[in-house]
Amino acid sequence: MKKLRIGIIGSGIAARELHFPALKRLENLYQITAISSPHIDHANEFASLCEKGVKTFDDHLKMMKSGLIDVVDIAIPVNFNYQTIKDAFDNGFDVICEKPIAENVQSAKQVIELCTKNPEKILYIAESQRHDPAIESIKKMISKIGKVAFFEYKLILQTKGSKYAQTEWRKSPKHVGGFLSDGGVHHVAFLNGIFGHAESVQAFVGQLSGFTDSYDTMVMNIKYENGVFGNYSVSYALDLQAENEFIIYGMEGILKLEGSKLKLIKENKIYEFEVPYVNFFEEEFKDFYNSVLTRSKSKLGDPFLALEDLEMIESGVEGKRLMN
Amino acid sequence: MKKLRIGIIGSGIAARELHFPALKRLENLYQITAISSPHIDHANEFASLCEKGVKTFDDHLKMMKSGLIDVVDIAIPVNFNYQTIKDAFDNGFDVICEKPIAENVQSAKQVIELCTKNPEKILYIAESQRHDPAIESIKKMISKIGKVAFFEYKLILQTKGSKYAQTEWRKSPKHVGGFLSDGGVHHVAFLNGIFGHAESVQAFVGQLSGFTDSYDTMVMNIKYENGVFGNYSVSYALDLQAENEFIIYGMEGILKLEGSKLKLIKENKIYEFEVPYVNFFEEEFKDFYNSVLTRSKSKLGDPFLALEDLEMIESGVEGKRLMN
Repeated sequence: MKKLRIGIIGSGIAARELHFPALKRLENLYQITAISSPHIDHANEFASLCEKGVKTFDDHLKMMKSGLIDVVDIAIPVNFNYQTIKDAFDNGFDVICEKPIAENVQSAKQVIELCTKNPEKILYIAESQRHDPAIESIKKMISKIGKVAFFEYKLILQTKGSKYAQTEWRKSPKHVGGFLSDGGVHHVAFLNGIFGHAESVQAFVGQLSGFTDSYDTMVMNIKYENGVFGNYSVSYALDLQAENEFIIYGMEGILKLEGSKLKLIKENKIYEFEVPYVNFFEEEFKDFYNSVLTRSKSKLGDPFLALEDLEMIESGVEGKRLMN
Repeated sequence: MKKLRIGIIGSGIAARELHFPALKRLENLYQITAISSPHIDHANEFASLCEKGVKTFDDHLKMMKSGLIDVVDIAIPVNFNYQTIKDAFDNGFDVICEKPIAENVQSAKQVIELCTKNPEKILYIAESQRHDPAIESIKKMISKIGKVAFFEYKLILQTKGSKYAQTEWRKSPKHVGGFLSDGGVHHVAFLNGIFGHAESVQAFVGQLSGFTDSYDTMVMNIKYENGVFGNYSVSYALDLQAENEFIIYGMEGILKLEGSKLKLIKENKIYEFEVPYVNFFEEEFKDFYNSVLTRSKSKLGDPFLALEDLEMIESGVEGKRLMN
């Protein structure tokens, strides 16, 4: 099996803690050959965790011209995505890029334009939640609860003390709504995986905490083209742990996701199903590998889906209409 | 203590099952002396449950001119409220009237106009939820959870087989949004009791069930003038029982109302408080009694508050802005 030589741009949390472990486990598909970061010490530190011989660069353009890599993995502050994807395309590379696709919809559309201008190139937006097998489990079960009345997705994400809250680009975010888009694209990607294409969103947003210079709390209603609607509430502000909840209320029953357990509540009985475990990040890199080798674009890595996710959040934050 | 001779207009569910038991227990304040209903058999049947000597009428105007009553209690299909309140005022009576104030905002404003034109008369809108002692319990406790991030109020109200779903005027409702306003004014009255004056609402509505010719499901976001926002989701469509939920998420804790138990969750501890029991309907009639005797308008029976409740629902259903 041909191994892809992958060059990682970025040496932060996503690169080290999400992509690197997945790539290590997929060593029959990938070989990490280079890492670039403007903070070369940081890149070297990251390289020291890898197999020997990984070359580091303080500039991704140098890495792209090194002859050491076949594909590029981008995991950097999101407002640099557009330029970095452009550089990769200009230098002939296929790209896997950590979500969100961009810092706002305007920039995301420029990314889409890059794809249109480079139809032979692959841009895979790595949205981990699209690989959540709970999506398929729920889709298989949803007919059992009859017509859907509404859904409810509630997330209390204790963020203040987290490593994510310590990174400068998240403290003073250039990306729309701060954590609301950084985390939010995951949540709507999950919902869209189940319900399809969103027709309309409505939201109120607020900033309660001081650990980021942007919003940290949102209640959003989402209406889908298939008529289903529901509520997505999220707060990154609370200094406490609380249960997260995903529930779909149907005319004849309720579906409830609790961790890896999917519960069907119907006629006063509870049926429990285990959602199979997969590592979302491994799935992304496997999917990207197949995409590159077969020269076919993956549905789950589709930049258009990533644009839709981001547009829902931006529309909620800024009170705009979805353009669809 | 002076007893008020009360004439009840209407002999349906609200009159018999909500007002009548309360009036019976308040026999030191009220004497039911007359009942009117265009369905005289229905009125007679109702009268047979009361003390002997209650006179029945097939026309509320005849009752008003009978000399038998001091005050009027209105509990009829809501689209007749305006005309009936007008008739009562024209005939010199103070009025207690079951919520909602009217079938839509336009009609509610005409009711308010009647009040303005008859400043010496009392119109008490009987909104039971405004008398819920949980409101005061929550207001006393809310500072303990720090700044409020958002609230969530979720109600699954199994309605299809209920007595309410059997009444013709609810099956083919002339009131805005059908059950969404009939039940909904209660729910927002409760929320407004806690959070104050609503600044803005956003909602999606749907009709899933066939037992009423109107909407039966809504997800609504509400933003209050004090900056607090949250979600209110309700469905009357589901053919199943599910737990209702009212939760307020604060920066430092959570308040949760479960039946008559108010739970404060803070620093991994749960503190439980019992909300004192009161009969909301007795409270309404006591309050109306004092209002009539002291010639002062009650805050909790204020038609303006009832207009606000209704306007929130109508704005949600019709996608309009709140006028405030």
